[in-house]
Amino acid sequence: MTTIDPRQFRNALGAFATGVTVVTTSDEFGNDVGLTANSFNSVSLEPPMVLWSLARNAGSLPAFMGNEHFAVHVLSNRQEAVSNRFAKRGVDKFTGLELTRGQGGVPLLSECAARFECRTAYRYEGGDHMIFVGEVLNFEHFDLPPLVYQSGGYALAVKKPAEYAAEDEAYLADSFGRNALTYLIGRVFHQLRFRLRPVLESKQLTDLEHQVIGVLGVQNDRSLDELDALLDLSNLRVSQPLLAGLVDRQLIVLSEAEQGVRARLTDAGRRLNIELLAATKAIEDEVTEGFDHGEMQVITHLMRRMARDSNVDVPPLWKKPV
Amino acid sequence: MTTIDPRQFRNALGAFATGVTVVTTSDEFGNDVGLTANSFNSVSLEPPMVLWSLARNAGSLPAFMGNEHFAVHVLSNRQEAVSNRFAKRGVDKFTGLELTRGQGGVPLLSECAARFECRTAYRYEGGDHMIFVGEVLNFEHFDLPPLVYQSGGYALAVKKPAEYAAEDEAYLADSFGRNALTYLIGRVFHQLRFRLRPVLESKQLTDLEHQVIGVLGVQNDRSLDELDALLDLSNLRVSQPLLAGLVDRQLIVLSEAEQGVRARLTDAGRRLNIELLAATKAIEDEVTEGFDHGEMQVITHLMRRMARDSNVDVPPLWKKPV
Repeated sequence: MTTIDPRQFRNALGAFATGVTVVTTSDEFGNDVGLTANSFNSVSLEPPMVLWSLARNAGSLPAFMGNEHFAVHVLSNRQEAVSNRFAKRGVDKFTGLELTRGQGGVPLLSECAARFECRTAYRYEGGDHMIFVGEVLNFEHFDLPPLVYQSGGYALAVKKPAEYAAEDEAYLADSFGRNALTYLIGRVFHQLRFRLRPVLESKQLTDLEHQVIGVLGVQNDRSLDELDALLDLSNLRVSQPLLAGLVDRQLIVLSEAEQGVRARLTDAGRRLNIELLAATKAIEDEVTEGFDHGEMQVITHLMRRMARDSNVDVPPLWKKPV
Repeated sequence: MTTIDPRQFRNALGAFATGVTVVTTSDEFGNDVGLTANSFNSVSLEPPMVLWSLARNAGSLPAFMGNEHFAVHVLSNRQEAVSNRFAKRGVDKFTGLELTRGQGGVPLLSECAARFECRTAYRYEGGDHMIFVGEVLNFEHFDLPPLVYQSGGYALAVKKPAEYAAEDEAYLADSFGRNALTYLIGRVFHQLRFRLRPVLESKQLTDLEHQVIGVLGVQNDRSLDELDALLDLSNLRVSQPLLAGLVDRQLIVLSEAEQGVRARLTDAGRRLNIELLAATKAIEDEVTEGFDHGEMQVITHLMRRMARDSNVDVPPLWKKPV
């Protein structure tokens, strides 16, 4: 038999993704006890049973040995802070949380993805852990995306639609075609902009004018050189007629400064910028209506990384880099 | 006590995300036996122990009762087909798979995320299931993203970088700012195109010429009306001088047809298109170097959905809609 290094073994176990639960009970003095555990799993449908394991040296072991009731909360992906709180030792984990009481006076947390109230059916030996098998007396299921734990850190999970399941490898391989990521990004970009076109037309704005207003909207009062440097990313430059047109319509004012001409939005320009942002957001909301909270987190996070990793030598639009 | 509906209970259990394992052994006749299970979990570090549960009425129960050895394979996200195969009854699950032999002659699969060879330490009662606790004799860990199961279907998991963990809610709330999805998509689009600029310059091509070549590259021989309709998505139109320029450089040929002029790429145009696709792909590879296979699947899948959900009334570039 090979000697097993506990750290390497733990890392290998991390390859198995899990949800995250908080298991709670109350001790003989009526104190609430709870801890974060990912060793939860289903056992039996009839009778309904679940299990989880607790380290033999855990401070909460006596409470779980003494109270036959416990509750398992499957955390949603908005409950990372709850997971972190219950993973720590020696803090008052329940302070400030809205609690209700379950069977046996067990504290119940809210806003989780699912909750199981249990009565201990068996306690089994499991090496340095004790395995608790609970018969489920009551449960609730809230349709929230789960918090996921994998390889020692949190993860975001996205459901894979059945219709793509079989094609995944094929469409990743099709990297020059309609599933090439660059093509998809371009297509989404153009489609979002296409949908904004009627708004721009109703405001009698060209794409370039829209960009100038947007860039000034992020940070007002910029030199024309700065504007040009920022617009260079889109392969555009400001021109005298363009600026004159915006001045005529009282959307921007130009002023002479030491380092040259500077542009800034008027109040009307600022209002228009807010209207355009709202219209852009409305289109985004419409287009992402089918995405749940977890999917929005994932796509935003991945696009953010891609924005960082594709960064080019253009001055940042925002003062602090993304 | 509330009466528990097994179907609703099963759905609630699905809120807890899990990895997917295939557990294998061999029976007394030397036949290989295996099944897909997501009831796996870690139990103990010292001694190293894991557990999983098997339905009492499973056809494979006698094999697992008769052989004290078994192996748990944590599947990677490329092994959905393996998961499906081992989840079915009555097929020869091992046909065509590359097997090695572990302790006790147990069949071992390859290309998984982790693999644990175990000797049964305990078999416990668990309602309609039997809980197997195995002492781990040997394990291997391959650094592959895991297959995830959630709410009755497969899911893709993306590790959440620690630096974003705390900000997630904040940056979703910041929906008009630098983390707005539309802004990020635009930024990535422009940055990718910016990186392609030196290539286009070296080929003396404008963005519009590049688009015309790309559109003909997908499907050669189009009428000018078709070209215009496709370019309309990018708010562009073909012009006579543009076409004349491409003809002069022998990249396209124009021909008179009944319904008007048609354009198609010459061999030189086709070769140029392939060069441009390769350059685009090289930039994409560079920019997504930090993404693992699972992350590429997720971002491609989500952008694909967003492309579908933001579709506008422009003729499809590809004959079959995405």
